[in-house]
Amino acid sequence: MVYEGLSDSYTALLDAAKEAMGRAYVPYSNFRVGAALLDDEGNIHHGCNIENAAYSPTNCAERTAMFRAVSDGKRPGQFQAIAVIGNTEGPIAPCGVCRQVLVEFCSPDMPVVMGNLKGDWTISTVAGILPGAFTPASLDNGER
Amino acid sequence: MVYEGLSDSYTALLDAAKEAMGRAYVPYSNFRVGAALLDDEGNIHHGCNIENAAYSPTNCAERTAMFRAVSDGKRPGQFQAIAVIGNTEGPIAPCGVCRQVLVEFCSPDMPVVMGNLKGDWTISTVAGILPGAFTPASLDNGER
Amino acid sequence: MVYEGLSDSYTALLDAAKEAMGRAYVPYSNFRVGAALLDDEGNIHHGCNIENAAYSPTNCAERTAMFRAVSDGKRPGQFQAIAVIGNTEGPIAPCGVCRQVLVEFCSPDMPVVMGNLKGDWTISTVAGILPGAFTPASLDNGER
Amino acid sequence: MVYEGLSDSYTALLDAAKEAMGRAYVPYSNFRVGAALLDDEGNIHHGCNIENAAYSPTNCAERTAMFRAVSDGKRPGQFQAIAVIGNTEGPIAPCGVCRQVLVEFCSPDMPVVMGNLKGDWTISTVAGILPGAFTPASLDNGER
Repeated sequence: MVYEGLSDSYTALLDAAKEAMGRAYVPYSNFRVGAALLDDEGNIHHGCNIENAAYSPTNCAERTAMFRAVSDGKRPGQFQAIAVIGNTEGPIAPCGVCRQVLVEFCSPDMPVVMGNLKGDWTISTVAGILPGAFTPASLDNGER
Repeated sequence: MVYEGLSDSYTALLDAAKEAMGRAYVPYSNFRVGAALLDDEGNIHHGCNIENAAYSPTNCAERTAMFRAVSDGKRPGQFQAIAVIGNTEGPIAPCGVCRQVLVEFCSPDMPVVMGNLKGDWTISTVAGILPGAFTPASLDNGER
Repeated sequence: MVYEGLSDSYTALLDAAKEAMGRAYVPYSNFRVGAALLDDEGNIHHGCNIENAAYSPTNCAERTAMFRAVSDGKRPGQFQAIAVIGNTEGPIAPCGVCRQVLVEFCSPDMPVVMGNLKGDWTISTVAGILPGAFTPASLDNGER
Repeated sequence: MVYEGLSDSYTALLDAAKEAMGRAYVPYSNFRVGAALLDDEGNIHHGCNIENAAYSPTNCAERTAMFRAVSDGKRPGQFQAIAVIGNTEGPIAPCGVCRQVLVEFCSPDMPVVMGNLKGDWTISTVAGILPGAFTPASLDNGER
């Protein structure tokens, strides 16, 4: 895809996300999403959304990518960027559950690249999409 | 509680959240949270966090309050404000899952009052805590 | 409804579940479910399913009923029975997430009454629908 | 490990699950779980549990393995067996959420091998651990 004004590396990440999107399992919504997560060694961990008849066990693309990475041994702080794509009117927006998972593993200033199939894109950061997040520190600092 | 500079109505909402906090079921984290949701008729729907040994079925205070309200017949657009409280260092921060549930039922400019047991507080809005959210419209507009 | 061969008390519980079913919020699946949970004092806690555009924050009827009860102060061991109803071909089946929540709060032999709108019904127990469950004791006993 | 009386292939699957267990991300519970999912081509998809400070976004080992497989292109009906392991008193028990995800993708008679680090094991099936499950057909058959 051509994403006008977007760097080559982020374009490549969106392209990887688009490829993963093709493997989405979405019999209930028919709403396909793909994600690609870049780690500190330059490896890309892909993910698609995976639905469930009972709805709540559904897993989004961003989480699939992150769970792949962590189950391959990656740990908090070892991620550089994530790209997400869907066939949406504007650039796709990650859901709140996925934003919470990003907060667990990524630095607040990590770039989040959001695009669609028409070439629209926007960039924010983990803190930009979940400002004032509940963090691992929130749980630890609680004087329970 | 005294929340310096906070209006009487929001203080009352935080007080209701604090009362609900006492009913939290938190055998795994010991981290208590309470919430109080004000609807368009002036009724308050309370909620506490409710944990589960398997972790993922855990339900937060904000969602408990919202699910109570909806199961009592309230619908999107019929909410005025929500208050959340915990025994945290600063005002408590709702998790991403709860922010997503608020987006489903509340207007973007609905006030979200966050406090703690020491009298600290802050106010944001639904859009302020989940900017550029994935919304019901995101799903509908998708040319799947 | 007439549920042939079912006791009056369980029929009343299914009727309460059916009433709650009317308040389901199901814009994505149009699949309505209702639940009614009987506690040790004879009170009924109702619940309906409540969906979300992002799918995974969806809450089922059984969990809504349980979260209402716990947020009203009920605790593990203080439940007598639950009834669930949907407009299904046979008696409705609770999802695995809800079964896990029942395990957290109910005794293994607590009755689970499942019905539909045509008068079909069946009864099992919490252990019957989630045999060999992961329980709070599973987590505690783990030599981590 | 030696699992007395267990076939070589299932022992190998439990060994793969044990290796995945080492990559668990469990800062909150310290309760490690591993899983290994065998597909119809003889490939093994591994998974570990991955926790979150907000608890509900936590993902279990079985689901991590399944989400990996599906995001690599596997589809319902293309799985042969799953093994799960934890440091539990007896063989570990999958949670209800994971059982629901298995129901979505596996045949009712697919073997589920459960073990622990001491050599205890047991085998059931998908239908054996979630009898009378809510299935994709339940949702479709509903006369909504």
